[in-house]
Amino acid sequence: MSSVIPANIGVLGAGQLGRMLALSGYPLGNRFTFLDTTGSPSAGIGEVIVDPDNQHLAAFLDRVEVVTYEFEHLPVALVREIEQHKPVYPGSRAIEVCQNRVEEKALFDRLGIPTPAYRVVESADQLEAAARELGCPVVAKSVTEGYDGKGQAVLKQPEQAQEAWQSIGHSRLIVEAFVDFVREVSMIAVRGRDGQVVFYPMAENQHVDGILRYSVAPLPDLDERVQQTADGYIRALLDELDYVGVLALELFQTRDGSLLANEMAPRVHNSGHWTMDGAVTSQFENHLRAVQGLPLGSTEATAPTCMVNVIGREGDSAALLAIGNTHLHRYDKAERPGRKLAHVNVVAETHAELLDKVRACQALLPEAPPVAWSFESTL
Amino acid sequence: MSSVIPANIGVLGAGQLGRMLALSGYPLGNRFTFLDTTGSPSAGIGEVIVDPDNQHLAAFLDRVEVVTYEFEHLPVALVREIEQHKPVYPGSRAIEVCQNRVEEKALFDRLGIPTPAYRVVESADQLEAAARELGCPVVAKSVTEGYDGKGQAVLKQPEQAQEAWQSIGHSRLIVEAFVDFVREVSMIAVRGRDGQVVFYPMAENQHVDGILRYSVAPLPDLDERVQQTADGYIRALLDELDYVGVLALELFQTRDGSLLANEMAPRVHNSGHWTMDGAVTSQFENHLRAVQGLPLGSTEATAPTCMVNVIGREGDSAALLAIGNTHLHRYDKAERPGRKLAHVNVVAETHAELLDKVRACQALLPEAPPVAWSFESTL
Repeated sequence: MSSVIPANIGVLGAGQLGRMLALSGYPLGNRFTFLDTTGSPSAGIGEVIVDPDNQHLAAFLDRVEVVTYEFEHLPVALVREIEQHKPVYPGSRAIEVCQNRVEEKALFDRLGIPTPAYRVVESADQLEAAARELGCPVVAKSVTEGYDGKGQAVLKQPEQAQEAWQSIGHSRLIVEAFVDFVREVSMIAVRGRDGQVVFYPMAENQHVDGILRYSVAPLPDLDERVQQTADGYIRALLDELDYVGVLALELFQTRDGSLLANEMAPRVHNSGHWTMDGAVTSQFENHLRAVQGLPLGSTEATAPTCMVNVIGREGDSAALLAIGNTHLHRYDKAERPGRKLAHVNVVAETHAELLDKVRACQALLPEAPPVAWSFESTL
Repeated sequence: MSSVIPANIGVLGAGQLGRMLALSGYPLGNRFTFLDTTGSPSAGIGEVIVDPDNQHLAAFLDRVEVVTYEFEHLPVALVREIEQHKPVYPGSRAIEVCQNRVEEKALFDRLGIPTPAYRVVESADQLEAAARELGCPVVAKSVTEGYDGKGQAVLKQPEQAQEAWQSIGHSRLIVEAFVDFVREVSMIAVRGRDGQVVFYPMAENQHVDGILRYSVAPLPDLDERVQQTADGYIRALLDELDYVGVLALELFQTRDGSLLANEMAPRVHNSGHWTMDGAVTSQFENHLRAVQGLPLGSTEATAPTCMVNVIGREGDSAALLAIGNTHLHRYDKAERPGRKLAHVNVVAETHAELLDKVRACQALLPEAPPVAWSFESTL
């Protein structure tokens, strides 16, 4: 790394996560080549190889020294093939596990990471039996290709099993009990090539219709032991997978304070975007440091911060910036219902001030739902 | 600005300042087109039109909605021509003044901004007389095209006038008395299209061989009245020039605390790079906000910060990042003696800790001179 020739980093995928990786990596001296298989890249930066028919992999590999990715719904065979030629971080094993809900749950179980009660079913009858056993409501999800709420159904009665089975249309489902959670949280951690692990403070996430809307960190009411427990869970995953880069773990926190793992993502994550303006080192920079074997940066939060997602329609940029200590991150994408177009990081001195400013943001964003933080009444 | 079509910003020049403008502007939704007249652009980002023979101005103008620049040594006629087609911020008047040391000093005088004593001379004999009158040593500078110590000579005796006149080789020089200064400081301020002005905390600068090496801000020993005086000086300049964007003003601070203006630069400035990691809003983002008519961001410093320039040869990136709360900003340029290749922003809790960390940085940079801060003994 003392070389004056910058590392060219290959990124599988060319959306906003790749864009933000590149924006974080240019200052390190990196260059970026994206391999886009969708035919509609939006990174808007770096060199983009549009390759929907998988014809240009060799050209991509020729250009890059190390490969990472911005989404995990990649053919595992493709990632394994790339690993024959160039280092890929995180490795194909992480993708394999994260693509398969059964393998993911099995890994959580093996590592002693609690999850909501679940069953694996292979027929409508088994689904009905599982719904009775777990107690409705339950959620049934396809084992593979689940993403952003697709391939899922909620059963309010066991008798809905037949209908749910048909609507999902997969041969193997995972059925999960509903959790009476107080809040959804996520852990973002980073593991270096040398095994060093650093943890960001836990964030509270607010989803609406399966899409993340707000993430706030650090949490003013978080018991240090809960953070340590979460650190332990994610460290176990990182070490088990011999993982390199950023890993995100979504969890439910229940009334008694305990944590249940929901799912993980082997990449930089929307619930870690607050780190761009609220932590000493952003998740993007730390991911790039990890994949290049550089020392990891401090994950310390610098101030109460909330990430506000801009979905479907943009707001008035000038009015958003006028709120003060708001940081706009636009993705240069056309408006479309449900599409992630940008996020705004709001930074404040206190959580009470933060809440006021986030509400001011929300009022300027046509599609933003009301803010609801679990700790609001304590402010 | 609520539009989903991002503003395409045209930048005259395509070096590291343009690169950092672009890295700050992508998150705002901007795109960038650079016009490079040198034939050796280094921005490494955005669209670069290489145009050493001035053939592609129309194509450049077609692409962009607003024009700014990263260096002021541009033909004023070119900037005026561009102003006929697209808004240029800061305007050609600022360039004109900053290119001409006599006009610049006259403006300082007119606005009541103190400067070191000076004379304008048009012959070797006049130079000798001025040196006698001001008292040696004096520095003689060409009126135009002065940049990074070129076109200058120091006279230790009036008798050196003939030799200095020959070596500079211009028909009109400005001769300045030496100032017995305690430190060199700079002011960075930003003026919006609506006339709003915001000021960064003053930075102390350490030059060696005419090249900036270190800038530190905020200053722990700075009298608030001195900052206010400097704010007043730069505000007078901004208002007088009906200026839009970032303006940098370099000053000397003398033993009695008073300030003498040295020179100004109508652009983002090396002595403002600390703001990328040490202020709420960087000078780059604020410059872009200004030229687009967006509200300006807070200029508040978030922690003691020192910018360490990497000149000529790079250091070991891994070792620099391992220092902790160090932020690397590499320009993706080849090593060459005297060339600005990167800077490292070092952030700390206290100025004493900052000094230790900057010394650790210096030890890792082959060409970095010893750190010498005027306030070191007070820490």
